Amino acid sequence: MPDTVEGRDATDLLERTRSAVDPELRSAVASLPGSLRRVAMYHFGWERADGTPASRSVGKAVRPALVLAACRALGGDSLQAVRAAAAVELVHNFTLLHDDVIDEDPTRRHRPTVWNVFGVPDAIIAGDAMSALALGLLAKDRHAASAAASVRLTACVIELCAGQQADCAFEERSPGEVTLDECIAMATAKTGALLGCACALGALYAGAGEEKAAAMDAFGREAGLAFQLIDDLIGIWGDPEQTGKPAGADLAAHKKSLPVVAALSSGTAAGAELAELYRGPMSASAVRRATDAVERAGGRDWAQLHAADRMSRAVGELARVVPDLTPAGDLLALAEFVTRRIR
Amino acid sequence: MPDTVEGRDATDLLERTRSAVDPELRSAVASLPGSLRRVAMYHFGWERADGTPASRSVGKAVRPALVLAACRALGGDSLQAVRAAAAVELVHNFTLLHDDVIDEDPTRRHRPTVWNVFGVPDAIIAGDAMSALALGLLAKDRHAASAAASVRLTACVIELCAGQQADCAFEERSPGEVTLDECIAMATAKTGALLGCACALGALYAGAGEEKAAAMDAFGREAGLAFQLIDDLIGIWGDPEQTGKPAGADLAAHKKSLPVVAALSSGTAAGAELAELYRGPMSASAVRRATDAVERAGGRDWAQLHAADRMSRAVGELARVVPDLTPAGDLLALAEFVTRRIR
Repeated sequence: MPDTVEGRDATDLLERTRSAVDPELRSAVASLPGSLRRVAMYHFGWERADGTPASRSVGKAVRPALVLAACRALGGDSLQAVRAAAAVELVHNFTLLHDDVIDEDPTRRHRPTVWNVFGVPDAIIAGDAMSALALGLLAKDRHAASAAASVRLTACVIELCAGQQADCAFEERSPGEVTLDECIAMATAKTGALLGCACALGALYAGAGEEKAAAMDAFGREAGLAFQLIDDLIGIWGDPEQTGKPAGADLAAHKKSLPVVAALSSGTAAGAELAELYRGPMSASAVRRATDAVERAGGRDWAQLHAADRMSRAVGELARVVPDLTPAGDLLALAEFVTRRIR
Repeated sequence: MPDTVEGRDATDLLERTRSAVDPELRSAVASLPGSLRRVAMYHFGWERADGTPASRSVGKAVRPALVLAACRALGGDSLQAVRAAAAVELVHNFTLLHDDVIDEDPTRRHRPTVWNVFGVPDAIIAGDAMSALALGLLAKDRHAASAAASVRLTACVIELCAGQQADCAFEERSPGEVTLDECIAMATAKTGALLGCACALGALYAGAGEEKAAAMDAFGREAGLAFQLIDDLIGIWGDPEQTGKPAGADLAAHKKSLPVVAALSSGTAAGAELAELYRGPMSASAVRRATDAVERAGGRDWAQLHAADRMSRAVGELARVVPDLTPAGDLLALAEFVTRRIR
């Protein structure tokens, strides 16, 4: 199926964002002391584990693209916001480093994770350094928005931490104990917060005040939640050829993703069946039955409708700051891009 | 033995620092989301593991005291620097949380460490949040020095990370492979950098420019290295009653502390004997022989002389910014305090 016009636009936009932000990002990473730099270079896919150069481009740069697009949507010069965009990407990557340690994930983006290659200590330490590097980039920036952006980005890191901690805590609880509201709050903190912060930083760098920055934040959060819902659907019904994971991977891992929790809390017979399946080991046949149970319990439909609802709320928030949506075309294309992958 | 006058002065100063900084620190920690807050409250000794209040005061607050004393030494109002002092203490504690995970240390300050009570994921996540909280405190501060202080503190965190990584890398290397220069560079990054940064932040909050801040940083670094040398001597010859650890604890753990590396690289027969002992398991008798070997190889004398040398360099750096040392009395008392523990 050919890309839609929006899809091509967003792909171009991400490509252009990488061209604009990569030099800033690479120069920041290059400023790290030797062995921390090596770990970071590997993580970003710029070097192989043995330290030889690699040209593999990893990461879609959605968050930096949101920073720049939000800045342009409010009439700002996005060149001024490149450093903020790099800071947001560094924060995203520091959380990936630590999340991979915590979740003991052996691979990311089809490569062994940093802890898997360099060990847990180096992964923790390099993540800490990348977090400080991100906040240092903003502090060094002589733009008038620098301090307000730092306040928002540090608050966002704390929210990301709270989201990751809630996620870990949910894993310990039995199916049925986690409510859908808790699950949505967790996804908002873990995924929505940084997409929202990216948009808010773009607004601040366009000279917007706190009110417009807050509306931009809300746009990014709602789009981020839609993104998470679609991601969760892909985790169950995604095409293994495209995702690189076996079908139903999230169910096999007993993940309490949003469609699963919606099904578990549906009060339906299919929901009870799913809860029963989740109490045991997930064989291939159990995964197939669980997939079917999520669908019959309404988890799939709920997630699709709720994603659409969140996207419409996102556009509503955006219209509050950019009443004529024309200059916000790039932002909308990005929001469409991250949520269109299963249609 | 009664405290010296300097000792009493420093003890009073630390007590007054805690009174001034604790409210800011507690209010920052209280702003964390629920479960992150609980982990941080436990770490600071304000709550027990079960969440009930504890009044135990943990941590000597040396770093916040340096911030305030450096500010006063340059004629600043130290009340203005309380937030910066709290930020430095948060950074110190975030590194303790992560170092304990990395080193798998089961106790700190006579209590089980956070990872030991709450698990590794919570310790990593709470550390990440405390780091962001520290930098957010500075970013929110409307003081003119806030941006410059943030730049210094983020650079310092990166240096602390490099120091911790070097420390981990040294553990992997065999005795004799680590040079004394490498070991000093590691201790400077791991311990000196934050003491230096504390003094530099105090200077910036007194309205000093980069040159004076840099000299204050150098003072703190030199005093910090002296502190580390004394700490390493205590790790070998410290009184078990005072340290709460068995005699020779660092030798039993094969630690490549500064006196040990000085002995190993001394080119003496005693140094070779120590290297041989370090290749095997450290029984109580091996620890006794190693203690003796470090002394005969000159490791103990070197460390004591080098600590005195670093302290005199520290005073030299201080005299560059405060030619008449009278207003720097508190700073000197603190430097004496942290390095007098073995005399």
